[in-house]
Amino acid sequence: MKKETKKLDILRISGKKAENVKDIIVREYPITIVFNDVEIVTLLCSPNNLDYLAVGFLFAEGLINDKKEIKSLYSDDRKGVVWVETKKKNELAKDLLTRRFITTGCGKGISLVGILESGSDKRIKSGIKMKSTNILELMKTFQNKSRIHRLTGGVHSAAICNTEKILVFNEDIGRHSAIDKVIGECIMHDIEMTNHLVITSGRITSEILTKLARAKIPIVVSKSAPTDLGVKLAKDLGITLIGFARGSRMNVYSHSRRISDRQF
Amino acid sequence: MKKETKKLDILRISGKKAENVKDIIVREYPITIVFNDVEIVTLLCSPNNLDYLAVGFLFAEGLINDKKEIKSLYSDDRKGVVWVETKKKNELAKDLLTRRFITTGCGKGISLVGILESGSDKRIKSGIKMKSTNILELMKTFQNKSRIHRLTGGVHSAAICNTEKILVFNEDIGRHSAIDKVIGECIMHDIEMTNHLVITSGRITSEILTKLARAKIPIVVSKSAPTDLGVKLAKDLGITLIGFARGSRMNVYSHSRRISDRQF
Repeated sequence: MKKETKKLDILRISGKKAENVKDIIVREYPITIVFNDVEIVTLLCSPNNLDYLAVGFLFAEGLINDKKEIKSLYSDDRKGVVWVETKKKNELAKDLLTRRFITTGCGKGISLVGILESGSDKRIKSGIKMKSTNILELMKTFQNKSRIHRLTGGVHSAAICNTEKILVFNEDIGRHSAIDKVIGECIMHDIEMTNHLVITSGRITSEILTKLARAKIPIVVSKSAPTDLGVKLAKDLGITLIGFARGSRMNVYSHSRRISDRQF
Repeated sequence: MKKETKKLDILRISGKKAENVKDIIVREYPITIVFNDVEIVTLLCSPNNLDYLAVGFLFAEGLINDKKEIKSLYSDDRKGVVWVETKKKNELAKDLLTRRFITTGCGKGISLVGILESGSDKRIKSGIKMKSTNILELMKTFQNKSRIHRLTGGVHSAAICNTEKILVFNEDIGRHSAIDKVIGECIMHDIEMTNHLVITSGRITSEILTKLARAKIPIVVSKSAPTDLGVKLAKDLGITLIGFARGSRMNVYSHSRRISDRQF
């Protein structure tokens, strides 16, 4: 496993003082995912849990649906490559990906249009309910867990929780990749996601919603802001979107029926 | 011009209080860039200054080098499209972009390998020097300027400055697009960038460095963290990289010779 941080010599200036010190900074590493012998993407990410990253990414892309479809999964972090092979080969994968990557920006390739057009059959119907105090407690635990962020200030983190505790936690320099890693980890360890919530340190944009919709996760909580398109998708997809969850406060942007102690 | 923010009804929870209030949130909008009749990318961004965004993006991609190469530039923010046509058509653009977008992740397509292999000829030699106090003053002004961020907490901002003041300032939900917009604005208004500095609210990753190298900008300042690959590129490319510039403090990660009052 490559180390996620690195020590560097820097010049630290503070008021009139300037000194050469050692500083810990976060690593950024290009990782290429090879899917059935096709090199489909290179992600700039934190070099840990590459298997989860690859599985979560391929799942978000619709290239795998289930752990059982995977024939082999092998990562080499020195080479920066993850190889994934499925039992059944999808001949369309290459064309599909080419098209997708040309028509999206920072989104790691998920087709926004597909989700927007998908309509009510994709709506998440989970009956999970949680207390707002409960959610804020989980957020507090989440924030104390972020080891690399405490060291470097340079990463995002994501977690998947049940109503009681954090089940899966990952950090990555990219907010999309942190989400891919927690979803990938759930898939690999057969953890059901449909009655769980996801916590993220990052802003909630449309691309995050499309990843959650695919995993059928009914609640997303962030300490940061959402975008209007994120909120629109959350409303359409039946996902409870909570932003600015800090201290004893939070904003609920959609489907507040799942907050059991503060209904209106 | 589409409005960058939107009012929405939300449920605000604060301790034991819950109330329905209006909240202002940032807009996220898909914008497609059509370059010489080829649809090359759709960026999820803030719907303002789309011309600057397109020019900055195409410049970063190496598809245009100069304002003079542009034959026509037209944007329709209702349709979410920017059309750019150049006088000379580059037949390779389509192939080049297909390849690039498959092999990069969140990077909006810049080929990292190309930059890493580029060697010393790409090194920025600018002799600009600045006082650290001066840089921190500019950072303070920069942070007070961020109108949409103050309203929504949901955007990044970027600026290009000379040693005295901010010349160009833009906000966008994406940290890459905010940089593309300021560089695009400089290109369109014939503002030299080679003796200037760029300020960004976002983390400084490898992809930000490749954009700055292309514009030959010698100094980059952020209130946030860099990554190790960002620092490596800054060292190799001759760029002064400053992170965690807050209050009276900053960390200088590379080429501190350009800080005139705090040399070691």
